[in-house]
Amino acid sequence: MPYVMVQIPKPPADEPLAPRSVPTSADVARLAGVSRATVSYVLNNADAVRISEPTRRRVREAARELGYVPHAAARSLRAGRSRTVLMPAPSFPAGPLYSRFLSELQWALGRLDYTVVQYGTAGAHGDEAARAWAELRPVAVLVPGSGLGPQGVEILKRSGARAVFTLGPEAVEGAHALLMDHEIVGHRAARHLYGRGRRGIGVVVPAEDGLGIFSTPRLEGVRRAVRGTDATVTELPLAYDERDAARVAARWGSLGLDAVFAYNDEYAMLLMRALQDAGTDVPGDTAVIGADDLMLGRLLRPRLSTVHLELPSGRDLAALVDRAVNDPGAAPERHEVLGAAVVHREST
Amino acid sequence: MPYVMVQIPKPPADEPLAPRSVPTSADVARLAGVSRATVSYVLNNADAVRISEPTRRRVREAARELGYVPHAAARSLRAGRSRTVLMPAPSFPAGPLYSRFLSELQWALGRLDYTVVQYGTAGAHGDEAARAWAELRPVAVLVPGSGLGPQGVEILKRSGARAVFTLGPEAVEGAHALLMDHEIVGHRAARHLYGRGRRGIGVVVPAEDGLGIFSTPRLEGVRRAVRGTDATVTELPLAYDERDAARVAARWGSLGLDAVFAYNDEYAMLLMRALQDAGTDVPGDTAVIGADDLMLGRLLRPRLSTVHLELPSGRDLAALVDRAVNDPGAAPERHEVLGAAVVHREST
Repeated sequence: MPYVMVQIPKPPADEPLAPRSVPTSADVARLAGVSRATVSYVLNNADAVRISEPTRRRVREAARELGYVPHAAARSLRAGRSRTVLMPAPSFPAGPLYSRFLSELQWALGRLDYTVVQYGTAGAHGDEAARAWAELRPVAVLVPGSGLGPQGVEILKRSGARAVFTLGPEAVEGAHALLMDHEIVGHRAARHLYGRGRRGIGVVVPAEDGLGIFSTPRLEGVRRAVRGTDATVTELPLAYDERDAARVAARWGSLGLDAVFAYNDEYAMLLMRALQDAGTDVPGDTAVIGADDLMLGRLLRPRLSTVHLELPSGRDLAALVDRAVNDPGAAPERHEVLGAAVVHREST
Repeated sequence: MPYVMVQIPKPPADEPLAPRSVPTSADVARLAGVSRATVSYVLNNADAVRISEPTRRRVREAARELGYVPHAAARSLRAGRSRTVLMPAPSFPAGPLYSRFLSELQWALGRLDYTVVQYGTAGAHGDEAARAWAELRPVAVLVPGSGLGPQGVEILKRSGARAVFTLGPEAVEGAHALLMDHEIVGHRAARHLYGRGRRGIGVVVPAEDGLGIFSTPRLEGVRRAVRGTDATVTELPLAYDERDAARVAARWGSLGLDAVFAYNDEYAMLLMRALQDAGTDVPGDTAVIGADDLMLGRLLRPRLSTVHLELPSGRDLAALVDRAVNDPGAAPERHEVLGAAVVHREST
């Protein structure tokens, strides 16, 4: 049987070897009275290789007796190809919609026999991060947010990644782009408010870190929607707490606004309550609209109008990743994946 | 220089080799005019080995030119020990509190130079799942929820895991236990309601899948809190939608209840709104208490009473994992990690 001989340097002295008690495929081979290659073929289900059923059984029994399981890293080294899909953790706090989307995607990739590795963001940025990711030799990488440049894509591809995807506002050279343009969310909200006769439009911009990737394009979408009309757009920084909402509500009369797009439903609920407590009638004096279509918005009085967001299904996206992995030479694809539609209730 | 010779079987014919374009350490060695071992020592920062600075520089430049990065899997095979902490994705839908806890923990482990691998749950259960996890040769495993048994712990340890932790209601033989006993949540809520003079206590049990791991002990905690008193406990199945809440609210009068512990704040907000819409006064006729202390509960009128939960900080837990990895022979530890305290507002 053919062997590839590989020289592996001995670990430095300060690195402990694997504890003696961890069984190896050599132990299994010894107990079963077969070669290590046979152990590997049997346990990795290489059906193409002709090995008799009694021998297969003997190997499996020896493995069970010793508590041996194959080593995925060794297997991927041998196969020259991993099934690891790496997803760096997003640099922004993930809301419920996005969290659900991510876990659906992980589940769907798992069904296609990929192992999803989530990588913490601690520390590294840009190309440095790409190098750290490349060390894990992923077969595909999905990068949420911005930050990865064409060089980072190149590093990943050189290390064997067969597909790199970005999930964010812009396409990056060499990578497939799942475009999530949040401008559309602000645009839809503003067109709705304008259509309801509102002309002084406030836009909540969260004071919390890391949300600029969403709030900046949402604000820009509002601006674009009313450009060239008689409507004005006023930026309203707001922290997610009652005190700050009361501060904004207290000076509401001086702002000359009759409508507000409040970034999302949580900020909208917070601000609407503060406005009501300060004597502002919603929607009489001021129309309020959020985004995300949380169930809780329907429990308020007036019921909260919102922008419903549509993300692609985890299953569709997993299929897209799988297709790209199987055709690494294909030209980068671009997909607009964010849909948005106003749900008109009572607050506008 | 000493070598360990390792025989690695050739991959079966139907498994593609790594694409020719992926640079290997052999390519770097050739370009730099040094041995592969030297490349390995330089790029893995083995400072103990005496290699001249010009040689180090030549290796680094060759690696940069070729776009080569070391292979983490190969490195962990050589070192006999990985820095991978494996966390299977929980089998229950993670709420905002738990999601924040997990991402904090991942971040903190990343700071300690561990690579956190989240593993999707698709398919495997019990020992089968443990075997799949073991293939990744994690140095530590953190298993949320229940499902891992003593055999699974043994499989993980035999494959080289130096520490196995469970996060859940019960300790498992051989593993460190981070005990999260949700009985305390129901117990605290019920003691509060009883102390406010309520005797007919309803307990919401979500109809949604996967929440039994929390709702069953919370219900049991309520039962335990009022055992031997004149209070009654009534189980109230409830789906997280307005129609089902209206159904429960419509027959409220016939249930003989003057209080409800509504599982968490979201179910509490849903049910309180439905009760109010059906003409039930809160807290006059019925006191309502949730759990989780969401900010949104403060925006309702009356303001929602709740049970505030405390999970351990990600930093403390990461330090605990690190300590256990460095002392694999230590006896399994048990830590009660869930704290709970009533926040009394207006709804009770």
